[in-house]
Amino acid sequence: MEQKIKNALLEIQRGCAEIIDIESIEKLVRNYYEKGENFYVKVGFDPTAPDLHLGHTVLMQKMATFQKFGGIVQFLIGDFTATIGDPTGKSETRKVLNTQQVLENAETYKEQVFKILDPEKTQVKFNSEWLKDLGTGGLIALASNLTVARMLERDDFSKRYNSNTPIAVSEFMYPLLQGYDSVAMHTDIEMGGTDQKFNLLMGRTLQKAYNCKKQQAVLMMPILEGLDGVQKMSKSLGNYIGVTDNTNDMFGKILSISDDLMWRYFELLSTKTLQEIEDLKNGVEDGSLHPKVVKEELAMEIVERYHGEGSGELAKAEFEKVFAQKDIPTDMPEFEMNKDIWICQALVDANLVNSTSQARRDIKAGAVKIDQEKVTDEKLNLKSGEFILQKGKKNFAKIKIK
Amino acid sequence: MEQKIKNALLEIQRGCAEIIDIESIEKLVRNYYEKGENFYVKVGFDPTAPDLHLGHTVLMQKMATFQKFGGIVQFLIGDFTATIGDPTGKSETRKVLNTQQVLENAETYKEQVFKILDPEKTQVKFNSEWLKDLGTGGLIALASNLTVARMLERDDFSKRYNSNTPIAVSEFMYPLLQGYDSVAMHTDIEMGGTDQKFNLLMGRTLQKAYNCKKQQAVLMMPILEGLDGVQKMSKSLGNYIGVTDNTNDMFGKILSISDDLMWRYFELLSTKTLQEIEDLKNGVEDGSLHPKVVKEELAMEIVERYHGEGSGELAKAEFEKVFAQKDIPTDMPEFEMNKDIWICQALVDANLVNSTSQARRDIKAGAVKIDQEKVTDEKLNLKSGEFILQKGKKNFAKIKIK
Repeated sequence: MEQKIKNALLEIQRGCAEIIDIESIEKLVRNYYEKGENFYVKVGFDPTAPDLHLGHTVLMQKMATFQKFGGIVQFLIGDFTATIGDPTGKSETRKVLNTQQVLENAETYKEQVFKILDPEKTQVKFNSEWLKDLGTGGLIALASNLTVARMLERDDFSKRYNSNTPIAVSEFMYPLLQGYDSVAMHTDIEMGGTDQKFNLLMGRTLQKAYNCKKQQAVLMMPILEGLDGVQKMSKSLGNYIGVTDNTNDMFGKILSISDDLMWRYFELLSTKTLQEIEDLKNGVEDGSLHPKVVKEELAMEIVERYHGEGSGELAKAEFEKVFAQKDIPTDMPEFEMNKDIWICQALVDANLVNSTSQARRDIKAGAVKIDQEKVTDEKLNLKSGEFILQKGKKNFAKIKIK
Repeated sequence: MEQKIKNALLEIQRGCAEIIDIESIEKLVRNYYEKGENFYVKVGFDPTAPDLHLGHTVLMQKMATFQKFGGIVQFLIGDFTATIGDPTGKSETRKVLNTQQVLENAETYKEQVFKILDPEKTQVKFNSEWLKDLGTGGLIALASNLTVARMLERDDFSKRYNSNTPIAVSEFMYPLLQGYDSVAMHTDIEMGGTDQKFNLLMGRTLQKAYNCKKQQAVLMMPILEGLDGVQKMSKSLGNYIGVTDNTNDMFGKILSISDDLMWRYFELLSTKTLQEIEDLKNGVEDGSLHPKVVKEELAMEIVERYHGEGSGELAKAEFEKVFAQKDIPTDMPEFEMNKDIWICQALVDANLVNSTSQARRDIKAGAVKIDQEKVTDEKLNLKSGEFILQKGKKNFAKIKIK
C-alpha cells in the first residue's frame, strides 16, 4: 500500500514545473487507496480553439495519470466567457462565440481528449451553468475579494500597466471567474501551465473567501517545446504536431526531433512508467539500444494513441519505405491531364515545381524522375498513360493522361 | 422668449462650481420654451443616510430650479449597491441594507425632499430595476468600457493606490454602475457635488459606449460650508442645520452665521431670484437695510420651507423674545418635584447645572433667578407651587412642587 502511494506520487510529480500543496495531494491519493474515495481534478480549456497539438496534451496526460489514482477529471469548458468575448471588439485574441459554436467546439474537444482520458472518470462541465446565476450582485461580491494592487501583481497585467498598454476593467474579472469555477465545482486540485499560476492560485484564494472546506492544490506543467526543441510548441511557429495530423506526418515529425527532446517528450507525453523510461535510457547509454529505435517507439506510441491500434506499425513501415529505402510511397497526390503535355508543364501542374524554368533547372540537375528513371531531355512530351513523377527524394505525384 | 431663456440659464448657472456641456443645457431649455418638451435631470442619493442637512439641499434647490424650466427630476435611490454593501465587511462606510430598510429610507427621503421639489415633476427611481437585469455577462460587458489606468486616475483611487491603501476590485464597479444608470434612464443632465466629477463623467462615457442618442451634460454644485463658514457642513463636525431641526434651532443657527456666509446661503439655498438678492445686497451696502434684518429673512424662508407657512414668523418672534428682549420663552422643559427642595438640588434636578456646588457658585455669581428675581440665598428651600428657574440668559426650566 505505502509503495503504491509512493509510486502514484512519483508519477503525479513527474515532469511538473511546480506543485503547491503536495501534502493535500498526498492525502487525496491516500484516501483513495485506503477508502476508495475519489477526488476532483479541474482543467480549464478555451473553447475558441479546440484544435489541439501535443503541447496541449501535456496536461491531458497528467489528467490521465490522476485518473489512475482516484482522480475524477473536471474537464471545464469556459463557455461563459467565450460567449461574452471582448465586448469592445478591441482585443483580437478574445473571439466571441455563440452557444452553437461552443457546443460544436466542445464536441471536437471530446473526440480528441477521449483518446487520452477515461470517459468514465471525466465530467465535462460548462461554466455558464453557475456563472450566469452569479448575477450583477454576485459578481460584485466576487470582485470584492481581491484588491486592485494584487491584480496588478499578475505578470502580464503589471507589464501592460507599466508600459501604458490598456487593460480593460473587465479583464480583472476573468481570473476571478476562473477562481470561482473552483468554488462552484468543489475542486481538489487544479492544473494548468506555468503561465497560469496567478489564475490557479485565485481558486485557492476564493475557496478560502467563500469558506469552502478545503483549498485546492495547484499543479503546474511546463510548456512543451516544439520540434525545434527551443521555442514552445505553437501553431503560429509551425513547430507543432497536431493531434489530427495524419499518421505519416506525426511519425515523421517525431523522428525528426533531437535525442534530448525525445527524452523530454517521453517524460511529458508517454504513458510508459518512469522505470520503463529509465530502462530505455540505460539501453541507449550502454549501446544495446540505438536512439533511433527508441524514438520510433515513442513515435509509434503517439501515433497509436490518436489513430488506433496498429497504426503505429503501419506508419513506421511507410516511413521506412519512403525515407529509409528511398522507395515510392503508396500514397501520393494524383492529377489528371487531358492531352500530351510537356514534361516541364506537367511538373508545374503537379505542384512539384513553381515554374517551368525551375523544372528545366531541376531536370538539368538530374533531380527529376519518371517512373523512377531520371529524365535527361527537358523537351520531353508525355503521351497518354499513367506515370509517377518524382522531384528530389521526397516529392511524388501520379499523373494520368487520357 | 429669448429673455426668458437667458434668465433660466442664469438661474441654472447660479452658484455652480462647474458645468460640462452648457450648450446642450441651453438646447434643452430652449426646446422646453419653444416646443414644451421636457428633459431629464438625474441626481443620485445614498439610501443609507436619509437624514438630510442643508448641505444636501443645495442639489435639491438646483433640481427645483430645473423643474421651473422643463426639467423632470430623476430622483435616483441607489438601492442596488446599498443592498450589496461591502461583502468583505472591511469597509465601515458601506453599510448593507435590506430591501425593507431601503424602502423606509426612501420614504424618509420623500418626506424631506418634497418640501423642495414638485412631486408632479419628480420620478423616484430605484436602480435595482435595471442593475439586477444586467447580470454577470452584462456587468463584464459594462466593465470592458473602461481601462484600469483611467479608473486609477480618479482622485481618491490614485491616492489610495499610491499610498498602498487597498482598493477592492469591486470598487471599480460602482462608478460604472452609476454611469450605467444614466444609460438606463436616458438622462439629459446629471448633477452632483464637485467631489463626484469622475463618476458624473462616467455617465457621458458610457452613454457614448452604449450608442445613446445624446450624452448627458454635467452640473456640479459646490460643497456647502457649515455654520463656521470654513469646513463643509457635516453631521460629524456638528456645524450643520438639519432639515428636521425644530424651528427655533433652525432660526437661531442661521442667525448665528457671518454676513459673508449669509450671502453664500442666499445664493445656494434661497429661492429668491438673483435680482431680489442683488436688491438686498444693495440695501445693506447703502445702509438702508440692517444685515440682521436680511439674515432674518433668510432664516424665515428656510424655516417656512421645512415647517410650513407662518412658522418663520413664529420662530422669529420666539427668537426675539428669548435673545433680543431677554424675556422668558413660551416653551421650556418642565419638572415635577415631590416635596420641599433645596434651591441647589432643584437646579441640578432641572438639568441647569451639573452639581450642587456648581449651583452654589452660580448663585453667588448672581446668575440664578426664580420667577425673574435674582436668588441671593444659597440655602433657600422651595415650597409647593410653580416656579420658573433660570440660569444665565438662556437656560430655563419650569418646576412644579406638590
